[in-house]
Amino acid sequence: MITRASETDEYIQTLDANRTVILTDHNVEQLVLPKFAALSPFRRICIAAGEASKCQETVNTILHQMHQLGMDRNSILIGLGGGVVTDLAGYCASIYMRGIKVIHIPTSLLAMVDAAIGGKTGINTAWGKNMVGTFHQPEAVLYKPEVLNTLPERHLKCGFVEAWKTFVMCKPNEWRELTFPLSEAQIADVAQTKLKLVEEDFREQNKRAWLNFGHTIGHAFEHLYHQSHHLLHGEAIAWGMLAEMYLFDANQDLLLFWENWVVNNIPKLPYTPLDKERILHLMQADKKSKDGTLHFALPYESGSAVVPQNVESVSSSLDRMWKKHLSKA
Amino acid sequence: MITRASETDEYIQTLDANRTVILTDHNVEQLVLPKFAALSPFRRICIAAGEASKCQETVNTILHQMHQLGMDRNSILIGLGGGVVTDLAGYCASIYMRGIKVIHIPTSLLAMVDAAIGGKTGINTAWGKNMVGTFHQPEAVLYKPEVLNTLPERHLKCGFVEAWKTFVMCKPNEWRELTFPLSEAQIADVAQTKLKLVEEDFREQNKRAWLNFGHTIGHAFEHLYHQSHHLLHGEAIAWGMLAEMYLFDANQDLLLFWENWVVNNIPKLPYTPLDKERILHLMQADKKSKDGTLHFALPYESGSAVVPQNVESVSSSLDRMWKKHLSKA
Repeated sequence: MITRASETDEYIQTLDANRTVILTDHNVEQLVLPKFAALSPFRRICIAAGEASKCQETVNTILHQMHQLGMDRNSILIGLGGGVVTDLAGYCASIYMRGIKVIHIPTSLLAMVDAAIGGKTGINTAWGKNMVGTFHQPEAVLYKPEVLNTLPERHLKCGFVEAWKTFVMCKPNEWRELTFPLSEAQIADVAQTKLKLVEEDFREQNKRAWLNFGHTIGHAFEHLYHQSHHLLHGEAIAWGMLAEMYLFDANQDLLLFWENWVVNNIPKLPYTPLDKERILHLMQADKKSKDGTLHFALPYESGSAVVPQNVESVSSSLDRMWKKHLSKA
Repeated sequence: MITRASETDEYIQTLDANRTVILTDHNVEQLVLPKFAALSPFRRICIAAGEASKCQETVNTILHQMHQLGMDRNSILIGLGGGVVTDLAGYCASIYMRGIKVIHIPTSLLAMVDAAIGGKTGINTAWGKNMVGTFHQPEAVLYKPEVLNTLPERHLKCGFVEAWKTFVMCKPNEWRELTFPLSEAQIADVAQTKLKLVEEDFREQNKRAWLNFGHTIGHAFEHLYHQSHHLLHGEAIAWGMLAEMYLFDANQDLLLFWENWVVNNIPKLPYTPLDKERILHLMQADKKSKDGTLHFALPYESGSAVVPQNVESVSSSLDRMWKKHLSKA
């Protein structure tokens, strides 16, 4: 269930739980929480903002606080924040007393159109991103597009990347209509499109894997350049989609649009061919690899599909991305 | 799916996974693993035996080793051991890469008839038993009753306690037929009886909660006396069932049988009225409590049911247990 804007406060007021607790981060607590009057009665657990919080140590702290606040199986956890907060809220709710209800209130565009939708939860480990987690569908996803006013444009663009991906994979005739910045109606449309796909294939046995377009290479970019170059998730995925389009004979309109959009809107990727071996190695350790073979979700003209690719093809597509967009000054 | 004895090795040989890894403990590795020739090709992760391993630190170590052994979403984890091992194997499998397949090979009677059946997984935390966990149904539960030959009688009796509980709650006309030691056919019958109930109510919204008979008070006994007096889980549950029978007008045959069996087969509970406050407090923090109200699964003559009880009744039933069975030398 996805509810927006005006109904959000009403929905919160109808919650009937013995304990309702908000999980949020310090930035969101200061900038966004005051905009939700209906949330003011609830106790909260507050974590440090940023991807570094998506780890087991934070989970231990959150679970302990959930216990201290008297939460039981009839309690509700509300994740108020971006993707880091909603991923953590979903994960903690899914393992606390073998699972309690969670509601997400995404406050970033990326979380509104992607991270908060569909029940994938997870944390990072020393050996990879989202390597530990669960599938735990939220009871509801509530949002107010007006909270996006506090978001830097760079973060809005990250949200656009995932929104565009969803349309390219699921609505191949409508992607041209999505332009930056997204309208409120488009945000709702993308969220519903993703939710519909997820409901058909909750545990990603099939079609849901389409949404991994850009993520096989993109996660490796993110892993390598997140800390050293402050590359954001959406930015890594934007370059990942571009590199993955070079794996096959992509629709020319689609390719041209995306090449232009990425080059004009996303910071230049710090990739050089010196990093190639490490990128290929990181991909082989990814969740989506099957016994070392790489799988890619790709937007073929005949319809989206997940296909295996050999390492040589991936290597060539990295070369092509490098030569065309990165090698020049 | 539950398979026994002769078919176990055959089933293992048909497993078609890119990596199959055994989780076990050092005792089981030495005493029981050699009895399963079909398991010899597989790599293993070995933990310290005992309830103290059911914690987050062990989970971290297991997950890391799963990664180092190259396990991915198409791999299978086999939990070979007692309830501690099968609970950990189920939990780690449920959160590794958002869930992989698990197969249990219980090697204690308690795990064969109870812990390994039904997909409840979990670890203990500083604030309580099984407070973190998931529901993750195993692909199969395999067993060989002959491995019980290495088990001390005290542990066999713990298995009998849970077996008797399942029959009392689910087959109220057949509990008289269960006597210690259980036959192989009875072990299979109890396991199937539990599995049938679980399949009707996997997430314990309803009837599955019947299996908590004895566990509301029993978990508090276990928490208090496990380390100080080496009380085993099944022994705590045996006394817990007895104390919970004093909460209501139990069937006299049932009560007399259980009073006799517990007094003659289970070590005396170290409870004294000085511990009462702590026991009541521990129960209120349990997962099964709803907003502080205690709920008990009880075997009424008219049919099993889960009912709330006030603290005064619980206090009286503890008094009755104390006076009748524990206060004398």
